[in-house]
Amino acid sequence: MEEKETGRTEAFSDGVFAVAITLLVLNIKIPGLDLSPSNLPNDSQLWILLRNELPMFAAYATSFATIGVMWLNHHRLYTHIKRTDTGLLLLNLLLLLVIVFIPVPTALVAEYLVHLDQHAAALLYSGTMVILAVCFNLLWRYASYHNRLLGKNADTSAVKAITRQYGGGPLAYLLAFALALFSTPASLILNFLLALFFALPPRLPSKLSEQSEKASELGEQEII
Amino acid sequence: MEEKETGRTEAFSDGVFAVAITLLVLNIKIPGLDLSPSNLPNDSQLWILLRNELPMFAAYATSFATIGVMWLNHHRLYTHIKRTDTGLLLLNLLLLLVIVFIPVPTALVAEYLVHLDQHAAALLYSGTMVILAVCFNLLWRYASYHNRLLGKNADTSAVKAITRQYGGGPLAYLLAFALALFSTPASLILNFLLALFFALPPRLPSKLSEQSEKASELGEQEII
Amino acid sequence: MEEKETGRTEAFSDGVFAVAITLLVLNIKIPGLDLSPSNLPNDSQLWILLRNELPMFAAYATSFATIGVMWLNHHRLYTHIKRTDTGLLLLNLLLLLVIVFIPVPTALVAEYLVHLDQHAAALLYSGTMVILAVCFNLLWRYASYHNRLLGKNADTSAVKAITRQYGGGPLAYLLAFALALFSTPASLILNFLLALFFALPPRLPSKLSEQSEKASELGEQEII
Amino acid sequence: MEEKETGRTEAFSDGVFAVAITLLVLNIKIPGLDLSPSNLPNDSQLWILLRNELPMFAAYATSFATIGVMWLNHHRLYTHIKRTDTGLLLLNLLLLLVIVFIPVPTALVAEYLVHLDQHAAALLYSGTMVILAVCFNLLWRYASYHNRLLGKNADTSAVKAITRQYGGGPLAYLLAFALALFSTPASLILNFLLALFFALPPRLPSKLSEQSEKASELGEQEII
Repeated sequence: MEEKETGRTEAFSDGVFAVAITLLVLNIKIPGLDLSPSNLPNDSQLWILLRNELPMFAAYATSFATIGVMWLNHHRLYTHIKRTDTGLLLLNLLLLLVIVFIPVPTALVAEYLVHLDQHAAALLYSGTMVILAVCFNLLWRYASYHNRLLGKNADTSAVKAITRQYGGGPLAYLLAFALALFSTPASLILNFLLALFFALPPRLPSKLSEQSEKASELGEQEII
Repeated sequence: MEEKETGRTEAFSDGVFAVAITLLVLNIKIPGLDLSPSNLPNDSQLWILLRNELPMFAAYATSFATIGVMWLNHHRLYTHIKRTDTGLLLLNLLLLLVIVFIPVPTALVAEYLVHLDQHAAALLYSGTMVILAVCFNLLWRYASYHNRLLGKNADTSAVKAITRQYGGGPLAYLLAFALALFSTPASLILNFLLALFFALPPRLPSKLSEQSEKASELGEQEII
Repeated sequence: MEEKETGRTEAFSDGVFAVAITLLVLNIKIPGLDLSPSNLPNDSQLWILLRNELPMFAAYATSFATIGVMWLNHHRLYTHIKRTDTGLLLLNLLLLLVIVFIPVPTALVAEYLVHLDQHAAALLYSGTMVILAVCFNLLWRYASYHNRLLGKNADTSAVKAITRQYGGGPLAYLLAFALALFSTPASLILNFLLALFFALPPRLPSKLSEQSEKASELGEQEII
Repeated sequence: MEEKETGRTEAFSDGVFAVAITLLVLNIKIPGLDLSPSNLPNDSQLWILLRNELPMFAAYATSFATIGVMWLNHHRLYTHIKRTDTGLLLLNLLLLLVIVFIPVPTALVAEYLVHLDQHAAALLYSGTMVILAVCFNLLWRYASYHNRLLGKNADTSAVKAITRQYGGGPLAYLLAFALALFSTPASLILNFLLALFFALPPRLPSKLSEQSEKASELGEQEII
């Protein structure tokens, strides 16, 4: 079997993803932790305090989902990427730089959900997503160009399917960014749909897909 | 040997578990750290300050134990799961989302131990546990359905033993949740017993268990 | 080659060690970060502010060294431990629980270095070390009892050397704990010497050590 | 294939790098998070609040880039280092101690960029870099001395190229440190150029490099 050179890149990236995905939970304050037992809030007060934390709960869940989908995409790319060089390592670092930043605009958006007439948070959020989509494309194009860093037996149709799925990303996110100038809800809904789209595996072209279905009946697997 | 596809899922999950399990230690304040040397508390004052931190010490230990048991279960499931697909990756992310949240209700419960007549903290805690039990079942059912993501030579009796042990989880935790409406101590005790139950490996059915004992005499191993 | 079952235990433990070892750097405040540019301290003020942070710098370095030595010991044990069971996983979790706690007493000791007549910090520190030494012994005894979780070709002399080196640990740390009741400096010095002792690999018995020297001339390696 | 003994060292180091590289994002405050929805800043206020965070954004990006380049170098060294002993583990810990500290001087430098007449931040930053360069040299010299911890078929020309590239590091960073006494901008520019220099792979000697070019035409790879 072909040896994989990307072990440490994946391990390091997994560590960065793991820290980034848990960061926002640190912003959830535990009510009354600095109070003496006799001053602790009673049940009805506590429910109110917890309700005030709701934006941070929402930010935590949204940020977790967003970074989770990014991890899923990173995982998907590196099932095909087998070799590495300095350029790829630097592009991977650039990608991680943006991913660790995601909790900041996500928390802002969650907080401003009650003021949908304000646009700054949505602009920052979708701006970050545009940059992220560009970074993912750079990484993938760099690695898949003439298959130079992919495995020797790389599945051509799967590689093409990813290239096609990613290709439209920057433009679609740019549209969400432009939408944020006029309507925050419209921008957020488009961002949500795009996250969903990138959570799912890329669609194989119909012909190849049929072959792949046959192949999977023979015990092979779907592209993850 | 059959190749394992779950390497990165496990590495990423381990990173998330590692961050989550250490989070609550950050809430233990080091007394007097912001004071100049001449204003440092003396020994008797320091003991009092440390005693006031006791709820956070307790929360740290409890949360560590809870997440530790969850890691143990995750480890146990992934000794059987050998393959992966998008669905499993998403269910795993959902599970991790809940696990990273555990320190929040745990700290609340530890803090409110002195006010056992209040129920909010216990409700939040056991509610989280109900969701966690459901997530574990979803992950395991998805992977073990027709053995689709397990190893080709999956140990059928061990797989069935896990399915049976997990099957009762959501209902048992729901009972603990209902108990919290009436009695916080009863709810916490049931939660503790359930944690203990899931820390231990699942019991094999008696017949198969005998065979397994023989097998283990022949150099094979217990299910971990 | 014998398959190693401890991969995930080691990966998870590495993650926990990594978070624990970096925790104290979070307590180093960056002076003037919350000030507007026009109010920033000048050079001479900044040096004073940084000097006030010295106890936290010291705490960070000490805690890093302590947890580093613990990691080294964990690494050393798991080069011999090849298999795992629920008991070992639980003992490993117990060990990690104590290790993540180390930054707390370390920061206290660093802070109280200027008040060597106070004993509380030194007591808490050396008390933690006693518990840690006991945990390391429990883990190792459990795994090495009748070689049940070691490799099939475990190096008997190396295993015995570790057992002997660890055997005296709890008593030696208990002595440092007792010393802290009378003299903080004496206790800290003994703790420092013990850390040094456990950083170094265990001494092989003289006869076996000669053989091992020959062996290493033949291309084999020292026990790490 | 020769077995690699450095798996856990790399995994642990990756974890430490991952935490260190994300630390500074924790210093980016999310404006208005502690306010009730009715008191949230409007768009124009929010842009001002975000602009005030710019030094921390810059510090985060700079620190990420710096530690990223260090990770790249660590990765490069450990593609050659195959074996390990206590000395190497301790030198690796020393290196990580300095790396986790990097965010502190980086944040100071980013903050003081507006006061280029002040030198303290630049001195602390370039002083840290001198120590780091010395640590990298110690680690590499220790491992590569008589090839004792490298692979049996270590690529001699690549090993020599690294030794040569690293050899000048401490002196060059010392120069940047001395410059900081007179001119903060000159010191920072030199530090930036040195980071760039160490991001790139070492240059092979011209003759060998030609051979390597031929080799790479035959399907082999560049040194990463």
